[in-house]
Amino acid sequence: MNNALVKELYEAIDALPIVDIHTHVNWKKPTASNIGEILSYHYYTELVNSADFQEGKFPFDDPRELTRIILPKLALIRNTVQYDWLMTISREFLWLDADEWRAENWELIFDRSVEVMDRPEWREELIAQANIVRVFLTNQYNDDLEGLDSSFYSPCLRTEPFVLWMERPAEREGLAAFLGRPIRTVGDFAAVIDKAFAKFVAHGMGYAAMSIPANFESFPVAGAEAQRLLDKMIAGTPLDAAEQKAWRAYAMCCLCDACRKYGKSFHLMIGVNRDVYAQGVPSGTDLFDSVNSLRGYDYLFNAYPDVRFPTAVLADTSGLELVASAWIRHNVYPSGHWWYSNQPTEIAREIRRRLDTVPGKSIGYFSDAYYLEFILPKFRMFKFELAAALAERMERSLIHPNMEPLSLDEAVEMAKALLVDNPARVIGIAGL
Amino acid sequence: MNNALVKELYEAIDALPIVDIHTHVNWKKPTASNIGEILSYHYYTELVNSADFQEGKFPFDDPRELTRIILPKLALIRNTVQYDWLMTISREFLWLDADEWRAENWELIFDRSVEVMDRPEWREELIAQANIVRVFLTNQYNDDLEGLDSSFYSPCLRTEPFVLWMERPAEREGLAAFLGRPIRTVGDFAAVIDKAFAKFVAHGMGYAAMSIPANFESFPVAGAEAQRLLDKMIAGTPLDAAEQKAWRAYAMCCLCDACRKYGKSFHLMIGVNRDVYAQGVPSGTDLFDSVNSLRGYDYLFNAYPDVRFPTAVLADTSGLELVASAWIRHNVYPSGHWWYSNQPTEIAREIRRRLDTVPGKSIGYFSDAYYLEFILPKFRMFKFELAAALAERMERSLIHPNMEPLSLDEAVEMAKALLVDNPARVIGIAGL
Amino acid sequence: MNNALVKELYEAIDALPIVDIHTHVNWKKPTASNIGEILSYHYYTELVNSADFQEGKFPFDDPRELTRIILPKLALIRNTVQYDWLMTISREFLWLDADEWRAENWELIFDRSVEVMDRPEWREELIAQANIVRVFLTNQYNDDLEGLDSSFYSPCLRTEPFVLWMERPAEREGLAAFLGRPIRTVGDFAAVIDKAFAKFVAHGMGYAAMSIPANFESFPVAGAEAQRLLDKMIAGTPLDAAEQKAWRAYAMCCLCDACRKYGKSFHLMIGVNRDVYAQGVPSGTDLFDSVNSLRGYDYLFNAYPDVRFPTAVLADTSGLELVASAWIRHNVYPSGHWWYSNQPTEIAREIRRRLDTVPGKSIGYFSDAYYLEFILPKFRMFKFELAAALAERMERSLIHPNMEPLSLDEAVEMAKALLVDNPARVIGIAGL
Repeated sequence: MNNALVKELYEAIDALPIVDIHTHVNWKKPTASNIGEILSYHYYTELVNSADFQEGKFPFDDPRELTRIILPKLALIRNTVQYDWLMTISREFLWLDADEWRAENWELIFDRSVEVMDRPEWREELIAQANIVRVFLTNQYNDDLEGLDSSFYSPCLRTEPFVLWMERPAEREGLAAFLGRPIRTVGDFAAVIDKAFAKFVAHGMGYAAMSIPANFESFPVAGAEAQRLLDKMIAGTPLDAAEQKAWRAYAMCCLCDACRKYGKSFHLMIGVNRDVYAQGVPSGTDLFDSVNSLRGYDYLFNAYPDVRFPTAVLADTSGLELVASAWIRHNVYPSGHWWYSNQPTEIAREIRRRLDTVPGKSIGYFSDAYYLEFILPKFRMFKFELAAALAERMERSLIHPNMEPLSLDEAVEMAKALLVDNPARVIGIAGL
Repeated sequence: MNNALVKELYEAIDALPIVDIHTHVNWKKPTASNIGEILSYHYYTELVNSADFQEGKFPFDDPRELTRIILPKLALIRNTVQYDWLMTISREFLWLDADEWRAENWELIFDRSVEVMDRPEWREELIAQANIVRVFLTNQYNDDLEGLDSSFYSPCLRTEPFVLWMERPAEREGLAAFLGRPIRTVGDFAAVIDKAFAKFVAHGMGYAAMSIPANFESFPVAGAEAQRLLDKMIAGTPLDAAEQKAWRAYAMCCLCDACRKYGKSFHLMIGVNRDVYAQGVPSGTDLFDSVNSLRGYDYLFNAYPDVRFPTAVLADTSGLELVASAWIRHNVYPSGHWWYSNQPTEIAREIRRRLDTVPGKSIGYFSDAYYLEFILPKFRMFKFELAAALAERMERSLIHPNMEPLSLDEAVEMAKALLVDNPARVIGIAGL
Repeated sequence: MNNALVKELYEAIDALPIVDIHTHVNWKKPTASNIGEILSYHYYTELVNSADFQEGKFPFDDPRELTRIILPKLALIRNTVQYDWLMTISREFLWLDADEWRAENWELIFDRSVEVMDRPEWREELIAQANIVRVFLTNQYNDDLEGLDSSFYSPCLRTEPFVLWMERPAEREGLAAFLGRPIRTVGDFAAVIDKAFAKFVAHGMGYAAMSIPANFESFPVAGAEAQRLLDKMIAGTPLDAAEQKAWRAYAMCCLCDACRKYGKSFHLMIGVNRDVYAQGVPSGTDLFDSVNSLRGYDYLFNAYPDVRFPTAVLADTSGLELVASAWIRHNVYPSGHWWYSNQPTEIAREIRRRLDTVPGKSIGYFSDAYYLEFILPKFRMFKFELAAALAERMERSLIHPNMEPLSLDEAVEMAKALLVDNPARVIGIAGL
């Protein structure tokens, strides 16, 4: 690694504004009020729980107490990139050096964090400091979006309720309440989806999104069959495995119909297994399956050539399959580096694969952040790997028999495509 | 990366002659006549289709028009290794620098290409310039091989018709026409295979070859059962999934019987899913499945210990499984880097795995080229990765506690084994 | 790679004592008596068999003759890391340089090896030279452990007989002989497990261990159902596939019950396919399947939160799945780099993944050695990759926007955690 070149490239890339196309930020409370809220992020509680078992129990409703309990245990996770994110938050936002993070300093750290974060101007300062220009959100169909600043936030409609959770009576009731009448027919089902899209579009909708279990399958399902499945669910009879698959395939198509109608992308996040770890902390109970085929999406991608599918995968074993799909399919776009793959080893490999073989349409990164504070350190992690990959490419280009020398400007242009231009074009972000 | 050492190694490796053990070159028209034919290669049409959707439609029968249409869109794929191949063709064969590739120059580029490529002496000049000494072909059993120069070309028999396509009446009729009598019995089936092998051997046969879907299974199938399946196909009754598997397993063994009889290798290319992308360009509609087990080959490899199986895999997830198989199995040989894995990230990893653990029997590379022009840039891509891996090995050897210093000569010897000696020995190429 | 820094780090790491938590050493004859015994290790016979087919036949009962036959063929595997291990044994223990390994020297090498290795003091000298402080063994329940030096060796109970082999009458008879009464009930089954644990604990038991086929599944099985399966096995009726799965799931839980009772870990080695290569040498007939899901362990890990599961995986495709599991699960610990993954490519990737995301609880390495002589070269291979990874981390830390500079002392501390502290704590090794 040519450190000087990586540093130079990193600094140029770091000067780019941040467009964050997937977060879990709550637009009504986008920043943390103290370090305890930062530490309640599942990355910290789950890693500490894994290193020093707590039976998943932390005082989540008492940030001060949570800080007192977790801080001494952070020494156990000091090797992790997640700890590095935290130190960036500390240095950049709290002006506290990493060596202040000692057990006996927990109160000092907590108090300092309140001083900084619990001010009304904090949100604006943070956004300016981190140079964040656009943040996509994760929203349920019935979330309150009144007052959302759509010049900064893009609400994105999570679609799990329609696809995965329709068997649950409470979900159907929620949808019925939203629609204003019971969900009795596939027509009602299409109507509730349409109403959700219409609402989101009125608030500057980003896209539809879904996190999907491994080995999802899409295929054509007739409306009559879907009606039969809906009737069965309403009657309270559990669907068998094949019927469940059929409903999911059907519902997915209904959502794609709405994406088509409203001209919106469908952001797929593929491969999660929910609720598999019994003793986990909240949001720390999900894993993934390395056995995950993307073949199940063939029907969907083919049937909706006019819908764009930015796609993130959770398994390392899906990385090249996604790249190959985006390489030939016009409506598939690799998107970021998700969750267990959001760390240097996987990022470094996928950046190189995508740069070498996917035409200029990949979306570089998203933070998946719960508070705006996490966006800066996470983007830094990605930008550093990108700088390392581009520096390597520049150096190789000087001696590669097939390549022209790649200039610094051209390398930064490639970074800008991944971080700004492609997201703007693929998802359709006005003003970028 | 030690650039000076990589360069020195690359130059030594580049001086080796090219033995290309798998191409799709048409021996009757082995070179392109103009740049439009080069651009009609699916790598360019599919990448452009992916970047800027054309519904898979290009004027394939009008190379000049194709050039006019595709050239402006190449800017969209400038980051890819496939673009780098094209620039090498431009620089090395057309004497046109990469910066000439601007939309407004399309006519100049096309005309220059005709000037160079559309001459009778072009083929010989190209072969001399690229230092190509042997090219293996991809042929159907009924291809015309009369007049083929078997001192340069080795025809290879594609076996999909026997294994995968026997249910299609037109395929059976084609085979019957070739055999001179209908295919009614498993005896007829063995006879048509034998006749194909005999024909190919008379023309300097390279090997038998097949591209195989993911999760192929081999197992013993009795002749009587195979006869029943053949009868069923002849009667026009579709085979069910288990019967299809059984026919495929049976036919594969018949082919291995012929390989055994004629002393020829069977080149396996594992893991392709055909025709999955509905809007793709010709040859740009296939993908692969990351879920692919090689277990299904156990029976075949064990039952034919005297047949050699050079094997290429399409999925990155099959890379170590192939390495482990070649590590212990005497009749399995890793072969090249295929298709979606034919790019730097996968090549770099597999080179290192194979160098570290497979005894000296791997086949380094093949180009898969459709025109002879592609052989040079593709081999360069591989040779550069090989030089980088060997340079790294030399540098590590200086400080590695288990290693003797690896000299430049020894490193080049390792490269020669992969590129020349192993292919010659494994496949049996006279005169190398 | 910064060679000077890697070397400095390697030397510091090499000074750490060796704690080897998994070997196949025979405590009654822990060292080889001559180089023929070293060469009988399956890595050499299988690689030579793969490179130059012997039909798996070597004179295993005549080490001198074996040496004469294998030595000339070693040139075929000179590129492999296994050959490098051998050269380290030669240089470090026999004082023979690598260039002495020529066919005509076979007798000189054999004689020198007898001179050195066939002395009573050899074992102690070797242990001192390699700085080995603790060696874990692989033992069957009925192995003779009387006289075992439990301050140096930790016997580990292999559990395949209970889980995988119960259908074999000879296995059940062996267990009955050990228990002192027939295995007729699930109570008898629990009793024989308990007796085995009690015996091992009396001799300083390390842990229970098992090498497990791909896609193992755990789930609750009632005692009555298990009794029915046992009855069926005793009656000599083969279990069907579902019944076999159920017995395995049941037996696994019985073993976990014993681990819980005796406070011992269960070391899982996941993903082997036994006896798949028909022409292989002894111990050279097994492979793995790249299609391997860890989902099947969810029930086990959840049901035994108080049992520790150090876990090794054979497939590269399971690497990130294991890392993710250890990242959130408190009772899963990545352990070493096993068999086909025990080579630089896989080690390098997994070291980085584990360092970046698993809190400080990974077990760095085990040798899997059959003789004590192999421990030094194998640990050297790992330590070199670890030094390279830590050097890279140090260099990156100097310019990484999220990191504090990592000092040499801190890097060595991280190595010590992997190599000494974590094994001591996770498995519970007194005196470290």
